[in-house]
Amino acid sequence: MRKDLDRLMEERGLDALVVSGSTYGNPSLVYLLKGADVSRGIVVKKRGEEAVFIHSPIERDEAKATGLPLIDMSRYKFMNVLEEKGSHLAASVELYRRIFADLEVQGRVGFYGADDPGRAYVFLRTLDDALPDVEVVGEYERSVLAVARETKDADEVAQIREVARQTCEVMAATVEYLRRHRVRDGVLVDDDGSPLTVGTVKQHVLRLLAERRLEDPEGMIFAIGHDAGVPHSKGRPDDPIRLGQTIVYDLFPRRPGGYFFDVTRTFCLGSAPPEVEKAYQDVADCLDAVIAEAEVGVETRYLQQVACAFLEERGHPSIANDPQTTEGFVHLIGHGLGLSIHEEPSFYDVSNNTQTLQPGHVFTVEPGVYYPDRGYGVRIEDVIWLDEEGKVHNLTDLPKRLVVEMAG
Amino acid sequence: MRKDLDRLMEERGLDALVVSGSTYGNPSLVYLLKGADVSRGIVVKKRGEEAVFIHSPIERDEAKATGLPLIDMSRYKFMNVLEEKGSHLAASVELYRRIFADLEVQGRVGFYGADDPGRAYVFLRTLDDALPDVEVVGEYERSVLAVARETKDADEVAQIREVARQTCEVMAATVEYLRRHRVRDGVLVDDDGSPLTVGTVKQHVLRLLAERRLEDPEGMIFAIGHDAGVPHSKGRPDDPIRLGQTIVYDLFPRRPGGYFFDVTRTFCLGSAPPEVEKAYQDVADCLDAVIAEAEVGVETRYLQQVACAFLEERGHPSIANDPQTTEGFVHLIGHGLGLSIHEEPSFYDVSNNTQTLQPGHVFTVEPGVYYPDRGYGVRIEDVIWLDEEGKVHNLTDLPKRLVVEMAG
Repeated sequence: MRKDLDRLMEERGLDALVVSGSTYGNPSLVYLLKGADVSRGIVVKKRGEEAVFIHSPIERDEAKATGLPLIDMSRYKFMNVLEEKGSHLAASVELYRRIFADLEVQGRVGFYGADDPGRAYVFLRTLDDALPDVEVVGEYERSVLAVARETKDADEVAQIREVARQTCEVMAATVEYLRRHRVRDGVLVDDDGSPLTVGTVKQHVLRLLAERRLEDPEGMIFAIGHDAGVPHSKGRPDDPIRLGQTIVYDLFPRRPGGYFFDVTRTFCLGSAPPEVEKAYQDVADCLDAVIAEAEVGVETRYLQQVACAFLEERGHPSIANDPQTTEGFVHLIGHGLGLSIHEEPSFYDVSNNTQTLQPGHVFTVEPGVYYPDRGYGVRIEDVIWLDEEGKVHNLTDLPKRLVVEMAG
Repeated sequence: MRKDLDRLMEERGLDALVVSGSTYGNPSLVYLLKGADVSRGIVVKKRGEEAVFIHSPIERDEAKATGLPLIDMSRYKFMNVLEEKGSHLAASVELYRRIFADLEVQGRVGFYGADDPGRAYVFLRTLDDALPDVEVVGEYERSVLAVARETKDADEVAQIREVARQTCEVMAATVEYLRRHRVRDGVLVDDDGSPLTVGTVKQHVLRLLAERRLEDPEGMIFAIGHDAGVPHSKGRPDDPIRLGQTIVYDLFPRRPGGYFFDVTRTFCLGSAPPEVEKAYQDVADCLDAVIAEAEVGVETRYLQQVACAFLEERGHPSIANDPQTTEGFVHLIGHGLGLSIHEEPSFYDVSNNTQTLQPGHVFTVEPGVYYPDRGYGVRIEDVIWLDEEGKVHNLTDLPKRLVVEMAG
């Protein structure tokens, strides 16, 4: 949580941290700016002190909304520095030299945010050489910001709950929209008699999201038949919606500049083949079995083991026994969820993953089995939150049912 | 353009380039994957050879859509490598060692994409130390990918034109939507008599975008009165829409995983104060004057100089004379537009900016004057494309008029 940042910096011997870049695709910067509607900037936080936001002059009003102490970037006259230094690299080093002098930053300084990797490599090497009082630090995994972000405080959970409610509303409305279509020769048809396609359904979903001020930056999955059997297939836009085929509908929208939610339901319109019914029951039972094991202190990798063992017991292959299998359970049981769609904690079943579930964790549980060559796949995904007392909450208020009867 | 990549690599002595990360917020990766609907991966391109895409096994169908030679990431058994090496950093270095061995990559290798800067710094330093046959190269500005991307080929321009057409449609529909409202005490009101707000207008625009499969990842500007006088103010959601106040409406949506468009119109509903009329005419004339100077071979910084001189001549302050002014013309005259909302060419008026306009450039021209303390600002923005013969095309087919009469 945000309140842990100073402790985490202390543990890693960091005197300050710098988070920079565009806010777009930069959840750590968004996190420190508390979702303020700015396009870019630099946040500098010294250990034990409040973060300072160095913002663009043309975004001064939005910058105020962060509630952070502000520095207007125009103070540094970057164009003059650029003119004087002759290259963007030298000018950027000079800019940081001036900022660090103003804020009295020295010692071990960690750098975070989003940038081109080669550009960051050149810049941070040059900066490290240029500033004798600063040691540039990078963190490869589980950085202070990743660890702070992985446990959510009450305000963050409230924001996630609101996106959850609206996401479940959209999922339910989509199923209703499908049910109300007419059917011809086993295919859903529009009012004008043309087949309803995956592309048209997605358009409808995008409208439902927009009405709720949600966006779909990563691109929803609405995959039918064979494509439902390939976990990350997004679905082919021209595919018609047929009765009796499995549809994997995985929606993971977010509030612009805010938190994601993530939920998957699998269903068949009209009826389902017995083989799919059996697979569906296996996955639904696996979901319950994994959630039953989720409690504070349990190793995250244990949930992956539980899921693999459960589904293998029911006769499905899994990556636990065959890492390259494309049938059965072929992915991780879940992932942390927040300002990124995938964040800590991670559920890799490897011995150096010693993470345990903690109060404040918000993560998906999403068992699935996939049989592309048999034309189907099943995944069911809920989101779990462990509150401060360690109590388990399922944030996904949406029915699970394989067969959806048509309304007509 | 894409076809220039080998020449650009040759000029910079690069034997290979690596572009990696999530596709989200990573236009260089999207560029090499030609917009394929995958969530992440690694592209390796040796000079003179086709790029190879190393993709996730669960995205194998989407990976095929790139048309690139493919390697399924599962070949490298990353989980086993992680188990063996004991850390993500060591395992990632080993992964690249294996990929480079398979593809016979050695020599000077440039790294691009999107990553946490500290993480990239640690990884690339470690990789450079670990691989004796590879020299890790980062480019700080005008990288091979930035330069290739800044000139658009016919296929890219066709995609931008389509987004342009739809964006202008949405802008026009928004103005119609406003015109059709009733007015009470100088404020637009909804059917239920409550004041129409900036937030409600933006909701309507988001629906219009969603209907056209456009998204608004950077967040549109719809700012009225004082906020119109602050260039990047997004507008306050609760502000009511009043007659006679200037509205700056700047819309910059994109096709998901594709190209942006960017257009601004300023208008007043019902009537405009004489001072705003004068400012509007100055900005509209400045737009024409700058576009008249846009031709192949002209230095980009010259367009900035033209704009500053023109508006100063009309009595407005500009950053040319006072870099810290918050009144008058306070920003750059334009920016390149493509898979990023801001990309090359850049229009900084500094002596080390020696860029000239080239065939294939697509860029905004967006003069504006801002007077927040007087409660208004004006910006008008069109997009210009220089075709292969250097002919100037204005891609923005949308009327400009300051005063919009209400329909009622």
